[in-house]
Amino acid sequence: MTASSPIAVVGGTGHEGRGIALRFARAGIPVVVGSRDRARAEQVAGAMSDGGRLPVTGSSNAEAVARCDVVILAVPFAHAVESLRGCAEAFRPGALLVDVTLPIAFVGKAPVFTDLPEGSAAEHLRHHLPPQARLVATFKTISAATLVDVERSLDCDEFVCGDAEDARRQAMDLLRALPGLRPIDAGPLEAARALERMTLLAIAINRRYKFYHARFRVIGLEGKAT
Amino acid sequence: MTASSPIAVVGGTGHEGRGIALRFARAGIPVVVGSRDRARAEQVAGAMSDGGRLPVTGSSNAEAVARCDVVILAVPFAHAVESLRGCAEAFRPGALLVDVTLPIAFVGKAPVFTDLPEGSAAEHLRHHLPPQARLVATFKTISAATLVDVERSLDCDEFVCGDAEDARRQAMDLLRALPGLRPIDAGPLEAARALERMTLLAIAINRRYKFYHARFRVIGLEGKAT
Repeated sequence: MTASSPIAVVGGTGHEGRGIALRFARAGIPVVVGSRDRARAEQVAGAMSDGGRLPVTGSSNAEAVARCDVVILAVPFAHAVESLRGCAEAFRPGALLVDVTLPIAFVGKAPVFTDLPEGSAAEHLRHHLPPQARLVATFKTISAATLVDVERSLDCDEFVCGDAEDARRQAMDLLRALPGLRPIDAGPLEAARALERMTLLAIAINRRYKFYHARFRVIGLEGKAT
Repeated sequence: MTASSPIAVVGGTGHEGRGIALRFARAGIPVVVGSRDRARAEQVAGAMSDGGRLPVTGSSNAEAVARCDVVILAVPFAHAVESLRGCAEAFRPGALLVDVTLPIAFVGKAPVFTDLPEGSAAEHLRHHLPPQARLVATFKTISAATLVDVERSLDCDEFVCGDAEDARRQAMDLLRALPGLRPIDAGPLEAARALERMTLLAIAINRRYKFYHARFRVIGLEGKAT
């Protein structure tokens, strides 16, 4: 994979998916926005591409997956397994699946966290992973509101977890393309149990401080190779 | 309570308890180190006081609790309920109980997290709270190794959660006494579910980066009243 290999964003027409797609496209990485509705994907991608200035195209989810070695799963968690099943055969051998889903639903304005028997959404999805793909979880702690506010430098850390070190490394290299973002290796996928709950913490902090962009940085790693 | 009211540290002879006690004492706040073993408490407090230069004394846990309006519970989580029961009647009316326990045990060097039916250690302890006390949880995400390394400026944030806003405010005021520490209001006690797991995350990061002092800061709150 070269730096300019395209990235698929399954569910790329949603709030979080658009934020991620736009940030990668602005960093010069081609993005294929996927949606169940191809026409909708093409329309959203067209608007994102800003008259062709940014490398964004749209397609069906399965076609986006088939065209890319990196696939970001950005659908609502409630649809994640169904979406994965729908394009499982399209995954390339060795593809990197990047889970950014959160097991949080909003009832009115109140976030409700779904406790999953596997411990986290990422571990739940591990059971439904296409056999030819490798799984990491990241973008769990940065809110969609922050991601989509593309003029705002991220200026924070983002945690990457996954059971295979090479998969984590690949995801961290990808994150380094985004200005202001420092990737942190959080180890095996189980770390998603902390990361997904940190999003709830960020939501609680946002409310209390009347804000939308609380995010995290790890202190003390200065001078360490990250 | 004035700024110089003493603080009790139940389990103050342990690693984390000593770190917290020393940091408050160095900030000029008198500390009563409690232990099940009064002689041990007096011995440890004597060593901590550095020949009387720092305001640290030792006593039994119950006596420490009886003498203070703020009680920090720093025993290992496995002994927390028993310790609370042992000094429940000693709590002053309106006392602030600060839970700093973690539902983590080490099997060899591997941390094992105890999933509790209430969701967190703090919520578990809520069921055993003396009726005259108010509960907050904090110091969940800063490691004992960092706390006890008192020459190291904390230079990070620490989260405070609890169901009563006045109790959170009181704990946050206390934290402000410690150089380099910014308290963050994380809302109701349920936030402990995230905070306690963040400690596991910090441990994972420490291992991966060969370090002992990973800790957290919230980005984006600049200019907000904290």
